[in-house]
Amino acid sequence: MEPISDVWELFPHQRAVRAFDQRPVPEEHITRILDAAMRAPSSQNGMPWRFIVVTDQAQKDALSPVYERCFDKVYGANAPDRAAGREPWSKTPVLIVVLAEAPNGRTSMMTGASVYPAVQNLMLAARALGLGSVITTLWRLENDAIRAILEVPEGWEIAAIVPVGYPDHPWGKSRRPPAADYTFRDRWGG
Amino acid sequence: MEPISDVWELFPHQRAVRAFDQRPVPEEHITRILDAAMRAPSSQNGMPWRFIVVTDQAQKDALSPVYERCFDKVYGANAPDRAAGREPWSKTPVLIVVLAEAPNGRTSMMTGASVYPAVQNLMLAARALGLGSVITTLWRLENDAIRAILEVPEGWEIAAIVPVGYPDHPWGKSRRPPAADYTFRDRWGG
Repeated sequence: MEPISDVWELFPHQRAVRAFDQRPVPEEHITRILDAAMRAPSSQNGMPWRFIVVTDQAQKDALSPVYERCFDKVYGANAPDRAAGREPWSKTPVLIVVLAEAPNGRTSMMTGASVYPAVQNLMLAARALGLGSVITTLWRLENDAIRAILEVPEGWEIAAIVPVGYPDHPWGKSRRPPAADYTFRDRWGG
Repeated sequence: MEPISDVWELFPHQRAVRAFDQRPVPEEHITRILDAAMRAPSSQNGMPWRFIVVTDQAQKDALSPVYERCFDKVYGANAPDRAAGREPWSKTPVLIVVLAEAPNGRTSMMTGASVYPAVQNLMLAARALGLGSVITTLWRLENDAIRAILEVPEGWEIAAIVPVGYPDHPWGKSRRPPAADYTFRDRWGG
């Protein structure tokens, strides 16, 4: 998958990539991706986020079956794409865990306002470098087990886990309805 | 402020712009901005968002004092930048209201995972076109009053209100610490 640096080409080429070839991701790419995330806006520029870059095979092997249990919980034997389009985390080159500051363990939609823009920068930067990624949240069903493996302390919550790697095949543009179908003028229904 | 389409230049040039000149924003720019937002990822590609583009002066004049009340609540007479760097919404060329689907009126951090990436695309696209924007959430202190003016129905929550316009002066790059200061390896503290 070719790198893309023109933003108007980049937006439509962001796809949810869940299967990767085994080429490692260069460390300098990880640095560029995270530096892009740091540029995102946050309330009072507080940057209330941390990143854990997981490449250690033992850690991926520990996380992977927990995530699979989440799929089993939701989908049973019919977990989507298990055979083809989705690979287990044990085979994913890099997992980027994004954490949000959560004083007293409390989060809300507003917590997300100061962390998901950074996640989006991260994923756009990955695609710009020719890497695929996907935002995952299903692991929330086993949040305690995932936290324990990653040794996340109180006061922080995992906001997203983002597998990153070179995709197993190239991806074209996404399809979307026109924004006009989702847009009102001046008031709801306008 | 010049347009920027190279994503590596774009990320560091996204700034929180709160004061605008009075040039109107072309309708085709609004369309491009919202089409970029539509390309963002969301859970199961559900696109659980709507946009309200507010340009009607009467609506802006209704919203503006409510937002000012929020500043008064938090800052009293010392509201930041009231004189210089921040303008009231009544003078803002466009307000883009981003709504998130909230079944039974309930939201969580995970609601944000499927809407703030779209907000970030929106703001990056604006900057790419030479426009400034800022993500605001302080109006939450008067959420009911804002909802009433915008006629937001049950089942939807306002996730962000984003003023958009040509900035009153050019902005350079943001400053950020290196990502390494915010990053662990394999586990918290690693």
